[in-house]
Amino acid sequence: MKALFRIAIFLLLSLSLHAENGHKLWLRNTTSNPVNVVCTKDSPILSVAKNELKQGWQGESNASVVLTIKTDKAIVGDGFKIVNNGIQANTEKGILYGVYELLRRQQTNEVIKEEICNPSYQLRILNHWDNLDGSIERGYAGLSIFWKKGNDAMVVSKNDKLLWNEYARANASVGINGSVLNNVNASPDMLRKETLQRVKAIADILRPYGITTYLSVKFSSPALIGGLKTSDPLDPEVIKWWKEKTAEIYSLIPDFGGFLIKANSEGQPGPQDFGRTHADGANMLADALKPHGGIVMWRAFVYQTSGEDRAKQAYTEFMPFDGQFRDNVIIQVKNGPIDFQPREPFSPLFGAMKKTPVMAELQITQEYLGHSVHLAYLAPMWEEFLQSDTYQEGKGSTVASCTNGAIFKHKYTAIAGVSNVGLDANWCGHLFAQSNWYSFGRLAWNSSLSSEQIADEWIKLTFSQNTTKNCNSIDWDLNFLKPVKQVMLQSHEAIVNYMMPLGLHHIFAAEHHYGPGPWWAPKGVRKDWTPPYYHQADSLGIGFDRTKTGSNAVSQYKEPLHLLFEDATTCPEAFLLWFHHLPWDYKMKNGRTLWNEMCYRYDTGLQEVRQFQKVWDNVQPYIDAERFTHVQLKLREQSRNAQEWKDACLLYFQQFSKMPIPGDIERPLNELDQLIEKDLKRN
Amino acid sequence: MKALFRIAIFLLLSLSLHAENGHKLWLRNTTSNPVNVVCTKDSPILSVAKNELKQGWQGESNASVVLTIKTDKAIVGDGFKIVNNGIQANTEKGILYGVYELLRRQQTNEVIKEEICNPSYQLRILNHWDNLDGSIERGYAGLSIFWKKGNDAMVVSKNDKLLWNEYARANASVGINGSVLNNVNASPDMLRKETLQRVKAIADILRPYGITTYLSVKFSSPALIGGLKTSDPLDPEVIKWWKEKTAEIYSLIPDFGGFLIKANSEGQPGPQDFGRTHADGANMLADALKPHGGIVMWRAFVYQTSGEDRAKQAYTEFMPFDGQFRDNVIIQVKNGPIDFQPREPFSPLFGAMKKTPVMAELQITQEYLGHSVHLAYLAPMWEEFLQSDTYQEGKGSTVASCTNGAIFKHKYTAIAGVSNVGLDANWCGHLFAQSNWYSFGRLAWNSSLSSEQIADEWIKLTFSQNTTKNCNSIDWDLNFLKPVKQVMLQSHEAIVNYMMPLGLHHIFAAEHHYGPGPWWAPKGVRKDWTPPYYHQADSLGIGFDRTKTGSNAVSQYKEPLHLLFEDATTCPEAFLLWFHHLPWDYKMKNGRTLWNEMCYRYDTGLQEVRQFQKVWDNVQPYIDAERFTHVQLKLREQSRNAQEWKDACLLYFQQFSKMPIPGDIERPLNELDQLIEKDLKRN
Repeated sequence: MKALFRIAIFLLLSLSLHAENGHKLWLRNTTSNPVNVVCTKDSPILSVAKNELKQGWQGESNASVVLTIKTDKAIVGDGFKIVNNGIQANTEKGILYGVYELLRRQQTNEVIKEEICNPSYQLRILNHWDNLDGSIERGYAGLSIFWKKGNDAMVVSKNDKLLWNEYARANASVGINGSVLNNVNASPDMLRKETLQRVKAIADILRPYGITTYLSVKFSSPALIGGLKTSDPLDPEVIKWWKEKTAEIYSLIPDFGGFLIKANSEGQPGPQDFGRTHADGANMLADALKPHGGIVMWRAFVYQTSGEDRAKQAYTEFMPFDGQFRDNVIIQVKNGPIDFQPREPFSPLFGAMKKTPVMAELQITQEYLGHSVHLAYLAPMWEEFLQSDTYQEGKGSTVASCTNGAIFKHKYTAIAGVSNVGLDANWCGHLFAQSNWYSFGRLAWNSSLSSEQIADEWIKLTFSQNTTKNCNSIDWDLNFLKPVKQVMLQSHEAIVNYMMPLGLHHIFAAEHHYGPGPWWAPKGVRKDWTPPYYHQADSLGIGFDRTKTGSNAVSQYKEPLHLLFEDATTCPEAFLLWFHHLPWDYKMKNGRTLWNEMCYRYDTGLQEVRQFQKVWDNVQPYIDAERFTHVQLKLREQSRNAQEWKDACLLYFQQFSKMPIPGDIERPLNELDQLIEKDLKRN
Repeated sequence: MKALFRIAIFLLLSLSLHAENGHKLWLRNTTSNPVNVVCTKDSPILSVAKNELKQGWQGESNASVVLTIKTDKAIVGDGFKIVNNGIQANTEKGILYGVYELLRRQQTNEVIKEEICNPSYQLRILNHWDNLDGSIERGYAGLSIFWKKGNDAMVVSKNDKLLWNEYARANASVGINGSVLNNVNASPDMLRKETLQRVKAIADILRPYGITTYLSVKFSSPALIGGLKTSDPLDPEVIKWWKEKTAEIYSLIPDFGGFLIKANSEGQPGPQDFGRTHADGANMLADALKPHGGIVMWRAFVYQTSGEDRAKQAYTEFMPFDGQFRDNVIIQVKNGPIDFQPREPFSPLFGAMKKTPVMAELQITQEYLGHSVHLAYLAPMWEEFLQSDTYQEGKGSTVASCTNGAIFKHKYTAIAGVSNVGLDANWCGHLFAQSNWYSFGRLAWNSSLSSEQIADEWIKLTFSQNTTKNCNSIDWDLNFLKPVKQVMLQSHEAIVNYMMPLGLHHIFAAEHHYGPGPWWAPKGVRKDWTPPYYHQADSLGIGFDRTKTGSNAVSQYKEPLHLLFEDATTCPEAFLLWFHHLPWDYKMKNGRTLWNEMCYRYDTGLQEVRQFQKVWDNVQPYIDAERFTHVQLKLREQSRNAQEWKDACLLYFQQFSKMPIPGDIERPLNELDQLIEKDLKRN
């Protein structure tokens, strides 16, 4: 009853505390019709469900809503059924998700009819790259909501709990059911007793929202904090240490989810340090977790200084182990073969590893997409990825169906997104970055949702027309919803255009991964960390030859993709320079030279951002001043950045192409040497 | 003969020494056909004329060119007549100007026919704001060519002489016949013996090119360097001092031109310091110069902290003295009533002072027009000014005819331009700034020339198609001459648009007069030095009310101008906010609100510069790499600046208008607070 009361108070507070600083996310319905909730059971999760109904009911006044838990084979996992008078589900979580779905449909004026909604993935997990000192790797929205520095680092405050509650509610409302609380570049201190106490406190808050807690672990923890001489996964002492540590965690958090691990990757320790394999390492941890029902998420983001094309290495290294992992190990693979670039082809591991569950790791935080400055709606990129056909089990073997259990039957299906949440009042730094948190949850629940539908939902929920005075629904749809949705849907492609069109990738400035840096290649830095390694621009042309005359990375793709990518004339132009090194005067399908096409793409990207600015300024009458100004200023900065990207890349590559920028294109404003100097100063 | 040889050597050197850094100005013909020059007389000036013919003859090979000095009443002053077989003139200088005209017509393929060419103004003078330490006030092309710091400041080097020779030749080639060697904010040290020795050395080099030397003097010189207790112009000792100093100058430079003086203006001393008038001061100096044939150019650029509209003060202060000046005094008046703004109406003194010769002071250096960064071809602005009808002696009393002797018959007619010349290899900082030096000379010679014709000449001479390989004349005319001329002709209006459209003025950042600073108004600074004094923006509207409800400056203009300016509906929109404070929603002739029109103007200016960039990049095939890149980089900077101007002014004024920027206009990129911060850092 105390928990119930706390939740009610929280809901009240969260509705009134914040003005329009964006803190309310997509959960901003502030009125409710009276409703009669009928539910014979009670539990923390059901309490949340009931309270949400009471706080947000937009249906008929005094209606009766019946929440029914009963087994139905058509309902899978935490799925639910919308029935005539309420929600039916197999589990309490199913009821909770059904309630959120019902309320969302009410608020967005969607059809509410009898319908079964089953999740695409069982495990829909946020990865937080939060460090114990409160910083966040690739975080652009302030410090960690979980961790902080100082003497009171482990003290759980009222505010902490309030915030974790809000966070959990937001996740639950879009179907996210797991959180990895710390960075994959993990500190061994994560597993210390006092830290685990705080993990327990967090887990206790997340649990009523159906969210399972996970941790990233450092492979060398046994030696670093366990007092052992080794962390060799086959060493009995090491095995014992992990078993005991795991048991300790479960004693605090009985429904703990398991471990996420980055091993033998970018300097992180791993089984190879002891002559063991990824399978040896993953299985040892899996054995420790198995008795408790936990899982291991083992990352495939690995690349050595071997000189082999970085894009090939994850496949090369992991394919031999397919079938050698325990059934509670999932291999977590980034969507593309390199590293969360604005556009990549899918990693060839998807669909190729058939005997091992593979989960996609998406990046919600915009490491390579303008941080929290650029308006980048990522659902179109994820949609493109999930719908990519791997052809591994014949036509239609999309990445989605290769990972969601439709094709391969494994014990677990899962998907992960690297979170963009921080202490900023609006959670994500950029108001529109909230849409990516929202979209990740929605796609994890239903991988066949369209990015257009998700944008539509998010805009309606976030900028509810109810908050706009003197505005009818037709006006709002036409003058706000439609243009803003168009901006969102175009935003990712605009970024690709002004940053890295035609398959260019990883030409960012060093370290910060924000501005352009195609020139960056200091002596002594490993080549596959420098842009020239990726763009390969020279007097003859540009692009990374991954055909048989080059690294032959194309061979990792199943036919007909292999041959499609191998041949420049059939390779999708979006991936042209990803797979091919082509002459500057290579003729594109539209008849332009490659150089000219690059020029047009870069300029188009810039012009698109300017257009976004216009659209946003024109919707001012439909939005509160705070959020209007917030986005207006972000777009201005993005527009300046887009100009710099265009100018830097065109002027840099022009040194090799020696070709003029087509006469009808707006000219560069910035000097190459000034841009380079600015970049070097920043590093 | 020695002088002759030196000149020949110089001509050879100047043709070959410099690559394409722009040093050759519009004097870049490098080939000559053999020619037989017939001239019965000899003199240094005639030697220059003959050598120019021999170095630059583009007519029939082995033609005979006859130079004839004989009196012809149809030829006035240093005018000349192009005759069938050469040049006829009353004076040696006339021959020299005739030769330059002949050669120019050959190089630009203009018609050469029998024709008399008389100068519009007798005195066509450059004012150099050069200080004795080598710095130049409002100079943007390096240090002074005349003065330098250091122990050898007064040593005349070979390089000095070479440069002064080149400078003199350039002036003579466009008809300039006088140079004031130092800043109007004059140092008293200018009149010291050792300085005058250097003046003599300069005068000796300028003389064979028909150029008279003048000096700016400080009114308090008698006290400052003469050991007198006062500089009171009615004090006998003072009178004596100036007589002796003048005689000393003439003993060194027998054809010395006279003094330019800034008195009781912006802190400079003057006769008012001793209870005397401008007339007292000017006449005292005139009396000292009179026996030697020298003149006084007395500046009317005065404004007190009286609180009276600054635009009115020169008129108020000088009109009472009309008729009280000696006949060798000329009143030098800046073109507009304020201070060389991008656009001003003409100063009401023109045509109003009928009994005193009045000369216009134009500013060639771009103090308020983007320094040597912005491409600003100023001839259209000067053309607009010279052709402005004052109505003082009926319709057609243009500024030109009020000052060139057509209407008022005084002993002298004159025009001055504040020079943009410095030690930079290309003389003027910006290659296109050379066109303003060129244009000033051409307009001073012939005030009815069109800016279009002058641009045509200058482009042909400066970018001679002879230097372009693989190019026929039709291509060059169409693809280079025409678009580049269009850029030049549009350039001034573009600057007005993105800096100060619709009669806005003096909203520059403090001191440097470069970037935007409509906000600049620190405590303690006199109000008429701050932009808010000039734009008067408030919640009601914008603009300076100079009608009868305001300062009534309109009353200083002769009918019908007075009433035309008084009424906002008849006032030219180009001067609207110069004369009127109007509401933000004031309806313009095109139906737009004033605020919207401002937005469109600012944006148009920016788009125009972007267009200039395109044009320039497209003419690359027709020009050498050095000059191409030079201008390309300048245009890029100008384009960035135009963006800042637009953003700063629109965002600043929007705080008052509270009106949205029209939806179809490209949005600002910069933040107002960032622009203000940048401005404050610079100051």
